[in-house]
Parts: sequence; structure tokens; C-alpha cells
Amino acid sequence: MFGKKRTPEQLEKIRQRKLRIYDIVFENDTPEGKAFDVFLMICIVVSIFLVVAESTLHVDAVGAMILRILEYAFTAFFTIEYLLRLYCSPKPRDYALSFFGIIDLLATLPLYIAWLFGPARYLMIIRTFRLIRVFRIFKLFSFLDEGYALIHALMDSMKKISVFFLFVLIMVISIGTLMYMIEGNVPESSFNDIPSSIYWAIVTLTTVGYGDITPVTSAGRFLSALVMLLGYTTIAVPTGIVSANLIKTKDSPYKRVCENCGTTGHDPNAKYCKHCGTLLDVNPQDHD
Amino acid sequence: MFGKKRTPEQLEKIRQRKLRIYDIVFENDTPEGKAFDVFLMICIVVSIFLVVAESTLHVDAVGAMILRILEYAFTAFFTIEYLLRLYCSPKPRDYALSFFGIIDLLATLPLYIAWLFGPARYLMIIRTFRLIRVFRIFKLFSFLDEGYALIHALMDSMKKISVFFLFVLIMVISIGTLMYMIEGNVPESSFNDIPSSIYWAIVTLTTVGYGDITPVTSAGRFLSALVMLLGYTTIAVPTGIVSANLIKTKDSPYKRVCENCGTTGHDPNAKYCKHCGTLLDVNPQDHD
Amino acid sequence: MFGKKRTPEQLEKIRQRKLRIYDIVFENDTPEGKAFDVFLMICIVVSIFLVVAESTLHVDAVGAMILRILEYAFTAFFTIEYLLRLYCSPKPRDYALSFFGIIDLLATLPLYIAWLFGPARYLMIIRTFRLIRVFRIFKLFSFLDEGYALIHALMDSMKKISVFFLFVLIMVISIGTLMYMIEGNVPESSFNDIPSSIYWAIVTLTTVGYGDITPVTSAGRFLSALVMLLGYTTIAVPTGIVSANLIKTKDSPYKRVCENCGTTGHDPNAKYCKHCGTLLDVNPQDHD
Amino acid sequence: MFGKKRTPEQLEKIRQRKLRIYDIVFENDTPEGKAFDVFLMICIVVSIFLVVAESTLHVDAVGAMILRILEYAFTAFFTIEYLLRLYCSPKPRDYALSFFGIIDLLATLPLYIAWLFGPARYLMIIRTFRLIRVFRIFKLFSFLDEGYALIHALMDSMKKISVFFLFVLIMVISIGTLMYMIEGNVPESSFNDIPSSIYWAIVTLTTVGYGDITPVTSAGRFLSALVMLLGYTTIAVPTGIVSANLIKTKDSPYKRVCENCGTTGHDPNAKYCKHCGTLLDVNPQDHD
Repeated sequence: MFGKKRTPEQLEKIRQRKLRIYDIVFENDTPEGKAFDVFLMICIVVSIFLVVAESTLHVDAVGAMILRILEYAFTAFFTIEYLLRLYCSPKPRDYALSFFGIIDLLATLPLYIAWLFGPARYLMIIRTFRLIRVFRIFKLFSFLDEGYALIHALMDSMKKISVFFLFVLIMVISIGTLMYMIEGNVPESSFNDIPSSIYWAIVTLTTVGYGDITPVTSAGRFLSALVMLLGYTTIAVPTGIVSANLIKTKDSPYKRVCENCGTTGHDPNAKYCKHCGTLLDVNPQDHD
Repeated sequence: MFGKKRTPEQLEKIRQRKLRIYDIVFENDTPEGKAFDVFLMICIVVSIFLVVAESTLHVDAVGAMILRILEYAFTAFFTIEYLLRLYCSPKPRDYALSFFGIIDLLATLPLYIAWLFGPARYLMIIRTFRLIRVFRIFKLFSFLDEGYALIHALMDSMKKISVFFLFVLIMVISIGTLMYMIEGNVPESSFNDIPSSIYWAIVTLTTVGYGDITPVTSAGRFLSALVMLLGYTTIAVPTGIVSANLIKTKDSPYKRVCENCGTTGHDPNAKYCKHCGTLLDVNPQDHD
Repeated sequence: MFGKKRTPEQLEKIRQRKLRIYDIVFENDTPEGKAFDVFLMICIVVSIFLVVAESTLHVDAVGAMILRILEYAFTAFFTIEYLLRLYCSPKPRDYALSFFGIIDLLATLPLYIAWLFGPARYLMIIRTFRLIRVFRIFKLFSFLDEGYALIHALMDSMKKISVFFLFVLIMVISIGTLMYMIEGNVPESSFNDIPSSIYWAIVTLTTVGYGDITPVTSAGRFLSALVMLLGYTTIAVPTGIVSANLIKTKDSPYKRVCENCGTTGHDPNAKYCKHCGTLLDVNPQDHD
Repeated sequence: MFGKKRTPEQLEKIRQRKLRIYDIVFENDTPEGKAFDVFLMICIVVSIFLVVAESTLHVDAVGAMILRILEYAFTAFFTIEYLLRLYCSPKPRDYALSFFGIIDLLATLPLYIAWLFGPARYLMIIRTFRLIRVFRIFKLFSFLDEGYALIHALMDSMKKISVFFLFVLIMVISIGTLMYMIEGNVPESSFNDIPSSIYWAIVTLTTVGYGDITPVTSAGRFLSALVMLLGYTTIAVPTGIVSANLIKTKDSPYKRVCENCGTTGHDPNAKYCKHCGTLLDVNPQDHD
């Protein structure tokens, strides 16, 4: 796009190289592509494991050194992977702005930001950027057709579920305030303010029931019992919504994924990705 | 209706003005109507937020002054809104007695009652009247067709669910008493009386499980385990009821709302609101 | 049946009287029948309320006297009611052995047993017999057609659910023992024996989660997490069973109840109660 | 197979004896087969009960002696049973490698391993092998047709459910790390490391809610509330999956079990077990 002119032969060579890299980095139907996927998966899992393990162990100087070197290695690998994907993608911009593109970028950032700001306290927060890398595991869904049905049943239900959550929010604020009125002045009670009471209402309505905040008066326990029975009934609503959508999407054509940006949900007769315009695979129902 | 005679021109002018106000206050298809809705929404959310925030903060004299002024402003706005709705409603009485009419009235009352009784301790209770204002958010359902399907699936299930709750009540009283018989005399147990035991039975049966009251004897734990398994099974009943109704109401004509009183559930071929007689919109399925 | 011979006129008179009593005691389509039902209901509710209240209050001599007199009154009323039902029932034996017949008998016993054994400590246990009277409330289901659909959806699922419970029992014993192996020797842990561990497994699997027994080691918490995810999945099984049956029994002829013994579930074309042989009402679908 | 030659008469005699033993040990349609099944069941239940009871009681020398003798008796019986099954099975190798074959073998091992290693501390672990014997109870499913529908609804859902669990795992790691970032440095909080936080996330997401680890800051409680509402929604996914499969498998031919290795799920027109090749019963739908 920029820089000196290239002969058609050079362009063709570049196109060929891009395609080869594309086959390795994005596809998994060649041995190289499969090997790359497996290696990437291992890197993701190990890097996550290291972050989790770091929080439990008190490492000595040598251990800290090893962890740092591994950190450098993973960051280097994830950076190269991101640049390759960007390079070989037919529409690099669409990849960069896609869900997986952002995840891939965020996976490389923590160490660079750490270098920028020095080994400060807040690095802990930066380090978690790597965890977002974990969502890469969604790529596994491309192997599992059921995964799409599941995610789309949830996605399709989103509007209904957000209405339901609005409804729950109103209930929870009302119930929390009511409880605060009843037990707010009882010394041995933990209902110290309305936010705590709303937190209690959510804990109760979702039947989690930690028991860190519990009513101590008869009136409070009576309201509690009503809230529990309410939660018992309302638990049916999202279940019903998702179940209905799950049955609906059973034979839906959600199995096609754009290989450039990972977008799904294309119409059965769509030939190009609706998000980035990449040519789609033929309908899997035709050659399955 | 009352007072001096008016010429037909005057009446027509009043009717026109009423219609204009109606379009702003009740409808949301004009720019003014939308602006009014948005402003109302902000007032509701801010006034709720203030009540919640008040419970957590220890405000100084200046803060208390600001809160009081905001309180006056909101009450004034909600009062004007209520009077306008009452004025422009074709059937004011039906509006006043409708669900939203009562909510609108209650939203204005707290401050007036506070003035009547002086700045007493019990104002905390009065202040919560404003929270009922929160249910105004149900008006949002008119924008979201799914909302009606949800509420009506719950409403239609009410009779069955109340039978189920009667059933639960009987179980809970029996189980609670049984538990009181087993652990009532154990010193380290918290089953001090039957109401506490019934509260425990509800906490257990709904799988909330606070853990503030738990059995300590073997017999008590055995009964506990049985109750949990019972709760595990009975949780299926309301789920089944609501799910069945949710599937049933999928293509139902519950989308039409009376613009005067907010009543829903009109028959597909109904032309007038079954509650207040206001002319209904044509079936939304026709012009959607 | 026993004693001196009676003329046909006398027998007819007795039959007429029996029928009149039957209409009051068993039926509710006459004003007397309805009044009797309402009075009975009030007696049941009040007598239950007294038992519950007694456990919370420390009554003085006068209060104890009032409670005792009320006790005598309720026992007398329930005894008369039981004898009347036995007298006017076309097949007294079948009534006496039916579910409601046994409930009715048990409701009268507590005081008599108390007289037999003197005011001993164990009276508390005897007193609960009265609570079984609470199940009389099931009679309300005869007014509510939905009640039968609900109970029968549960009853029809019983065989499947008992298989499921056997499955749960095996899981729970295995998991409990596994947990006991992991945390049985940890001093700060509460997994002191296998029954406690099984109790914990049920508490966890049903998502009740009291928190009175919780794992403290990493291995214990890992097993815990697995059990929770297992419980999350298995919760679907009874829901699916009951839901399926609830849909199935939607239009089933379970609405007919035998007026003598309360048996339900008669075939649509059945003319006599399959348990006691009493003539059944015509199918309610015909005159509803 | 090995050893000296046998005349056809001897072979026929052996075949007859094997068949007779087979009828007793594997079948339950003869009186001897039924008696054997009942006795086996009692042995299983009693041996499990003994292990459970041992953990609660402090037995004296005589009690320990009795327990040991019972142990010897059960091990002897289970060993003979295993050898008989191996002997009379048409394809002993397939039986030995089948699910029930492994269970049967494991049920005999604990005592032998104990003899090998001496009465060491770790015997507790060995003793639990016997509990695996408990899964023998699955044999009961052959009496209960519903059992197969249940297990197969779960089995068929396995692939989908494992995708769902992968999804849950990703969520739980992300949420746990987020919570560790928020409350990791709060002194009175229990979020000491990421594994503990992940454990908390699972406890919350599955609505178990022990309350052993709970957030104490406002930010932590806010995240908690979000996780609960997320759990409230995601609980619907496995329910939907299993329910759908349960409806699907309603009229499926899963009722046939191979009598040699216990394999199920044979095609309706299958004549031989797909796992070990044993001749299958005719379709039970034909002679039920």
C-alpha cells in the first residue's frame, strides 16, 4: 500500500507468502496450522497458569528470574503472532477491530506497559490483561458446532434477558430499601446502608445465600422468606427464555465463522462475511 | 364539568390543549414527548440515587441543604407531572385509580407527609414512598415488546403459582415444626422456636442456604438433607409452569397498552381498553 | 348393621339424614356445606397458629388456661367432625383408610394421648400430630383444577425421580467419602466423619451451601468446585422430568375427586371411585 | 481353551454348567437369579454401611474383630462372585474390561492390597475402593427403564455440557482474577490468592454460596452481584440442553442392555451387543 512500486510478480509472491502464513496462523486444516494452534494453546494455558501460580507462591530470586524470562518469551511470541495475523489478514483493519483482534493485541500489552511505567504497584492490574488472552479459547468453538448454538442462544436472548435484569434491578432496589427500613436500626444487624441491603437482596434472590448479611428480626426474616420464594419463581424466567432460544437455534445456520474476523451468525445464503467482507466457506451443511 | 358554562370554541380550545399536553406527557412519538420521557427518567434515577446515597454518607450542613433543595425540586416536578396527567387524561378517574396513577401519586407524597408530621424519625419510612416511584420504570416496557411477554407469562402463571406457594407453605410449616421437635431442645442449636424453624425450612427449600441456622444433630442433618433433595425437585415446578406459559404467550397480542391507564392484555380485536374504555391503538402487528 | 331390626321407613329416614349430613360435611355446593368448610378452615388455621405461637411466647397461668380451653374446643370439634364423616360416609371403612380419613383421625388424637400418658415431656411430639391436620388444606385443591395438574405432574414423575434420587444417593456417598479421605485428618476442617461429609455433599450438590462445613485445603476446594459444577448440571434432570410431565398432564382428566375418600386420577370414563367404589361425579369437562 | 483335550460331551456339560451359573449370576428371571441379586444387594449395602459407620464410631477390640471378620466375609463373597462372572461369561475378556467388570474387580481388591502393604495408615484410602462397588447399584437401572433414559439424556448432552464447562472455566478464571485484584490487598478479606478467588467464583456462579469467602469492599460486592446475576442466567444453559435431550430420548430404544458387559444404547434393530458381540434380548417393546 505504501512505499515503492512493486512488479506484479513481486506482488504475486507477497500474496502467496501471505496466503501461506494465513494457512498456518488462521487455519487448522494443514499440519503446520494444527501445530501452530496446539503450540498457541499451550502458551496460553501455561501463561495463565503462571499468573495463577504466582499469586499463591512466594518465589525466591531464582524463581522470580525464571518467571520474568518466561514472561518475556510469551510476550515475544504473542507479539509475533499478532503481527503475523495483522500482516496476512486480507483486511488487516477489520481483523484489528474484531473481537479476537482486540484480544490478541491486549495479550501482548502487559509487559510493554510495565516497561513504560516501571515496576510499580499497579503492575498487578496490568498483568491481568494477559487473562483476557484466555478468551482466545473461544477459538475452540470453531471445532465444536455445539458451541455456536450455545453462544447464540445466549446472544439471541440478550434483549429479553436485559429486560429481565432491569426488572430484577427494580425489585432488588425496592427490597433492599425495605429491608434497610426494617433492620437498619437494629444494632446486631448488618444492614448498615442501602447498598449493603441491595447486595443482600441480590444474594438472596439469586439463591446464592452467603450468610454474611442475614436478618435477625422476625419482620426481617419474614421479608427474607418472601424474597426467597420470589427468587424461586423468577429463576424460571431466564431458564424459559434461554431454553426456548436453544430449541429454536437447534437447526440454525450459525455454524459458519468468518476466518478473518471470527464473526458468526451469517445468513444461510450469505457468501461474504457481514462484518469484514471476507469470502465465507460454503454452508457446512452442504459438505458435512 | 363543574363551574361556568363554556362556548363550544372554548371547549374545543381546551380539548386541543389537553391533547397537546397528552402528547407530551403520555406519548413518546413526538420530540417533546421523548424529551419529557428522558427528563422524567433522569429525575427518577437521580432521586432514587440520592435516597440510596443518603444512607451511606454522613453529610455535613451544606450537603444536607443541597439534598433538601433537590428533594423540593423533585417533589415539585413530580407533583406538576401528576396534575398534568390528571388534567389531560380523557378519563382522569380511571388514570388516578390505575397502577401507574397510584405510583405517580405516591411519588409526590413523601415531602408533603413530612411537612404534616414534622421532621420526625419516621421520615425514613415516608421517604421510601419515593422508591415506589421506581416502578415507573415499568413504562420502559412499552418500548420493549419482550417485556410484556415476560410479565404476562408471570401473570398468567399467578393462579398456578399461588397454588404452588400454598403447597410450599404447608410443607414449610410441617418441616419447620418437625425440625423444632428434633433440635428445639439442643443447647447449641439455633432452632429456638417454630417461626425460626419455618424460616430455616424456607431458606433450605429454596436452596438459598444462609447458614445462620443449621442443624447440629445427626437427625437434624438427615432431615435437612431430605428437605434439600425435596427443594431440588420442587424447584422444577414453577420453572415448568412459567416456561410453558412463556412458550404459549410467544405470539400473543399482549403488546397493546392502554395509553390512559397502562392496562395490557387486550383481546386482538379489542378496540377499547377493557379497564377504562380509552380507544386503543390499532394492533401493532398491522403497522410494525 | 348391628342391633335391633328397623322398618324400611326408619331406614329411609336414616338414609335421608345421612345424606343431609354428607351434603354439609363432604360437599360444598350448599350454603351449609360452604359455611362448614369455612368454619373448618378457620379452626385448622387457628389451631396451627396456636401451636406456632406457643413455641415463641412464654405464657402466664391465664394464657396457659386459655390455650388449654381452646385446645379442648378444637379437639372436640375435630372429633365430632371425624365421627360425622365416618357416620354419613357410604363406605365408612374406605373413608377411614383413605388419606384424608387418616389425617382427620390424627387431628383428634393429640389431646387424648396426652390424657392417657399425663402431661409428660413427650407431649411436644404428640402435639405435632395436629400439624398433620394441615394437610387437610389439600382439600382446597378440589376448588383449584390447577392443583391436580401440579400434584399429578409430581406423582407421575415419582418413579423417574426416585431413580434420580438413587443416582444422587450413590454420588453423594462416593463424594462424601472422597472428601472425608481428603480433609478427614485436617485439624481445622469439619469433615469429622463420613455422615457429616455426605451431609456436606448434599448441601453442596443441591446448591444450598450453608457454609457450616466447608473445605479448607486446596484439594478439598478443588473437589468442592467439581461437585458444584456437577450439581449445576444435575439440577437440570428433575426440572426436565417434571416439566415434561407438566406439559403431558395439561389436558388430562385428573380433575375428578372421589367425594368419599379423596382419591383422584380416575379414568375419563370411570363411573366409580377405583379405591372405594363410590359413584363419581360426571366428568367436570361436561358441565364446566 | 488351554489344558488337556475334552470330549464333546464334557464340553457340552461345561457349557450347560456355565449357562446355569450365568442364569444365576447375570440374569434375574429365575428364582435363583433373583435370590442371588437380593443377597448381592444386601452385601453391597451392608459393606458400605460398615465403612460409613466405622468413621463415626470408636470401636473396642471386640467390635474391631467383628468388623474385620465381616470384611473378610464380604471380600470372599465378592471375589467368588467376580470369578464366577468371569467363568460363565461367554466373552470373559469383554466382561473384565467392561464398566461393571472393572467395578466388580475393584470391589474385591481393598483387603488384598491391605495384606500386601500391611496395616498402614493409607489403608483408609484403600478401603474406599470398596465404595466404587457402590456403582454396582447402577445394575438396578436394568429393572427401571426410566434409568436409561435419564443416563442417556446426560450422556448425549456430554459434548455440549463439556463445551459449556469450558466456557464456565474461562469465566471463573477471569472473574476470580478480577476479584483478587479488587480484594487481594484488603486485610480483612479472604481473597488471599487467585485459586481461592476462582473457588469463590465457582461457589458464587453455581449459587451454592457457602459464605466462607465473601467480599467486604463495595467494589467487591458489586462484582459479586454481577457474578450472581450471571450465574442466575447461565444456570439455564445446562437445564435447556438436558431437557431437550430428555424429550428427544423419550421414545428411544435405550432400554436394551447387553447381559455380558452391561453396554446400552444399541440400535433398535441390533441383534448383537456392539461392544462385546453377545446376542441381545429381543426388543423389550415387543414382549413388554
